[in-house]
Amino acid sequence: MPESAWDFVTRAMAELRALQGAAALLSWDQETYLPAKGGAARAEQLTALQGLAHERLTDPRLGEALARAGAGAPPDGAEGEARAAALRALRFDRDRAVRVPGDLVRALATAQSEGVEAWRAAREASDFPGFVPHLSRLLALRREEADAIGVPAGGERYDALLDGHEEGMRVARLAPILSRLTGWLAPLVERCVAAPPPDDAFLRGRFDLEAQWAFTMELLPRLGFDLDAGRQDRSAHPFSTGMDPGDVRITTRLFEDLPLSSVFSTLHEAGHGMYEQGLPARWRRSVLGQGASAGLHESQSRLWENLVGRSLPFWKGMLPRLARHLPQLSGVAPAAFHRAVNKVERSLIRVEADEVTYNLHVALRFELELALVRGDLAVADLPGAWDERMRRLLGITPPRAAEGCLQDIHWSLGAFGYFPTYSLGNLYAASLFAAARRALPGLEDGFERGEFAPLLAWLREHVHAWGRARPAEEIVRAATGRGLTDEDLRAYLEGKYGALYVS
Amino acid sequence: MPESAWDFVTRAMAELRALQGAAALLSWDQETYLPAKGGAARAEQLTALQGLAHERLTDPRLGEALARAGAGAPPDGAEGEARAAALRALRFDRDRAVRVPGDLVRALATAQSEGVEAWRAAREASDFPGFVPHLSRLLALRREEADAIGVPAGGERYDALLDGHEEGMRVARLAPILSRLTGWLAPLVERCVAAPPPDDAFLRGRFDLEAQWAFTMELLPRLGFDLDAGRQDRSAHPFSTGMDPGDVRITTRLFEDLPLSSVFSTLHEAGHGMYEQGLPARWRRSVLGQGASAGLHESQSRLWENLVGRSLPFWKGMLPRLARHLPQLSGVAPAAFHRAVNKVERSLIRVEADEVTYNLHVALRFELELALVRGDLAVADLPGAWDERMRRLLGITPPRAAEGCLQDIHWSLGAFGYFPTYSLGNLYAASLFAAARRALPGLEDGFERGEFAPLLAWLREHVHAWGRARPAEEIVRAATGRGLTDEDLRAYLEGKYGALYVS
Repeated sequence: MPESAWDFVTRAMAELRALQGAAALLSWDQETYLPAKGGAARAEQLTALQGLAHERLTDPRLGEALARAGAGAPPDGAEGEARAAALRALRFDRDRAVRVPGDLVRALATAQSEGVEAWRAAREASDFPGFVPHLSRLLALRREEADAIGVPAGGERYDALLDGHEEGMRVARLAPILSRLTGWLAPLVERCVAAPPPDDAFLRGRFDLEAQWAFTMELLPRLGFDLDAGRQDRSAHPFSTGMDPGDVRITTRLFEDLPLSSVFSTLHEAGHGMYEQGLPARWRRSVLGQGASAGLHESQSRLWENLVGRSLPFWKGMLPRLARHLPQLSGVAPAAFHRAVNKVERSLIRVEADEVTYNLHVALRFELELALVRGDLAVADLPGAWDERMRRLLGITPPRAAEGCLQDIHWSLGAFGYFPTYSLGNLYAASLFAAARRALPGLEDGFERGEFAPLLAWLREHVHAWGRARPAEEIVRAATGRGLTDEDLRAYLEGKYGALYVS
Repeated sequence: MPESAWDFVTRAMAELRALQGAAALLSWDQETYLPAKGGAARAEQLTALQGLAHERLTDPRLGEALARAGAGAPPDGAEGEARAAALRALRFDRDRAVRVPGDLVRALATAQSEGVEAWRAAREASDFPGFVPHLSRLLALRREEADAIGVPAGGERYDALLDGHEEGMRVARLAPILSRLTGWLAPLVERCVAAPPPDDAFLRGRFDLEAQWAFTMELLPRLGFDLDAGRQDRSAHPFSTGMDPGDVRITTRLFEDLPLSSVFSTLHEAGHGMYEQGLPARWRRSVLGQGASAGLHESQSRLWENLVGRSLPFWKGMLPRLARHLPQLSGVAPAAFHRAVNKVERSLIRVEADEVTYNLHVALRFELELALVRGDLAVADLPGAWDERMRRLLGITPPRAAEGCLQDIHWSLGAFGYFPTYSLGNLYAASLFAAARRALPGLEDGFERGEFAPLLAWLREHVHAWGRARPAEEIVRAATGRGLTDEDLRAYLEGKYGALYVS
């Protein structure tokens, strides 16, 4: 009996997932254990795997199998729904891959590796003009890529790029929400910085690195991160990667003088990691066994980092445990600690920003990259536009481009359309957490006892269990009763910081 | 301009090396850092990579390119020689891959995974009959594989299997040497065990694991293992794997009550690792950038483990350094230590055997597996034949099959033809070391000062630099002036142990 079209698709998906998993492990190793002289070989191995995955995804036989598998009547019920969802998701990935010509793929890869190198040098020297030709080239290639993929119906060129990170999201839907968000964030920042700043003197000093590590390793299983299905290592920049629900790797980093950097990195990456561990085991070989979007993934990390990890009940439960590892902290009251970890500041660097100012940093980048892709802003004018918006949104001016428009790696990879997913993550996190609180009375009392299982179980059921079978916003709507909105984040931030910052 | 046949071959080799490198990293991770629940996904990833590598190797376009690239006149000089050697080596690999039908490949893979599982259970219960059906199946499949590959001219079926590990080696050449070897080893063992055994009481007790680890990490760069081009980790069974001369991984294992297990494991694996690090960088993307054979690889590990690591000059230099980590050893004299680490015993387990008895364990396995492949020995009769030979060669009888014919994993993978490469390694190691001593006056005086660079440089030039461009025995012949011989090993062992064991 010849193989059915669906069987062919199933086999192709499993092979693609295996290749992606192998590539993910190679990338993880590159950031954790790769010897200094192993870089060239690693790059060749990754290029080979990515080339093979691209070859398999664009294989015309897969295209035919997808067409034939979609033509027949699917099985009834959940099985049929899952099959239809998998066909849709794989077709989406394949269409994007097929439409971009090989020459453009190679040109982008070259421009990216040259771009990152040029960006590092430019940031080091704070030399924006040196970066201009690279950024211009990347922008031109991404616009070409967007046109090759095709502008979604009723959309614009930027949407084709955004779609690669946040399937189904559109500028027309996103821009008004981010604009509303900046509207109420600016006065909230104003109010916070006008009040007396919290005392965080107890966070200064030297904090033993091994003790920090030990606390994060104690924290992980308590949160619900399964150390038999994953691990934590150290790396220069924290990240997470999931090869399989049974093999999820996260990293953290340790600084002697920043005792909470490791804790919040671990919380953030554990959020990503628990999402990966919670993806349905039955879809481990399917295209559905992945996170639904970059934004929904970020919602999980931000939820654990901020909604849980910067809450008073969390620190009522965890501060005594942390102080067992870092005895310098044993005299600090949880309420004082809570105020210190929620310090609001007008700062220049996105990755160091607090919860309140963070989305202003994102909004600025979204506005600027949208203008670049639309052709409304010339690359050479970027620093001026950056500084002007920085003054308007945060009331400060970067002293030099290294602390301004050269601070992030994203654009050096031509990753236009990624930044807004950070804010989507914050928005979804607030809505999901609000829904979980409604569904689980006494949820935060549990935090005080170090109990997080009810929250994780709720996220498993309402978010993780869907994998990529539905668009992110639909998953959030089903879980919370509403789609993308800034109201939950507003209620959360205004409530929390209104109480914390009383001038 | 269309791609030349040689360019096609070059590209195919580079892709194959990249896929092999990726698979090697995945296997390394499986033994070091893989979470408990990650096994299923890892197996799928490895299967996918091996399948792709097999697909590329057997691709008819590669066959055509190999034929066309071989037809034209190669460039003059070293470049032309290297090209011819690469074409020969790749054709060798490809022919073996093409000749074995896909059904047989899959049947072998299944029989291997079932075989290993059955072997573990059988060894656990010392239940040989439970393993018989699996071993019979593996033997039948390997005989079928040997026939598919084809018996080399003038050879026998076993040669086709041996060829997969030790290219060009033949039973007709190997059997007489191993037989001579057992001839003079037996009386040497006799003499050693008749003499009073060395005192090794100072090796009993508890030895701190971190201190053992620290010593091995200090030893590695001193030997010449480049920690910027490799790393050491811990695993249940020590092994080494080379992804690239710039990325070579070795492992060791630590036991509190066996302070030297870690040291000799590190020495052994560092020998393999330095071979991999010494492979020519210009061949990193070529089939030539690999070890020449399993036997030559083993010669490098055994040379460092035994000829260097069990020598008196080595311990004159290293014992004070070891004692800094393990203060219990600070009162021991180097000569007494040297005697203790060269204790000769009639023992049952190959991997625990000393230098003198080791090759008797190998000879026994070679005789038996040769008889199995020839059809001269029935699988069911293996335990009896094992015990009989064990008595004859070593004068002891295993109390049960778990300490007899069930002790090694090799046959549970159907790896017939591998065991003799261990003795080839010992034979080549003795010949290479003898040649290095002749070429480098004062070599061992250097060991006393902790200097190993001259030895490594000699091995780099005479062994490592050849990669896979010549057969192992030719490399040894060029380096030592003679091919495979038991005379150097005999002179070494009889000289060393004659002096150590005086009754």
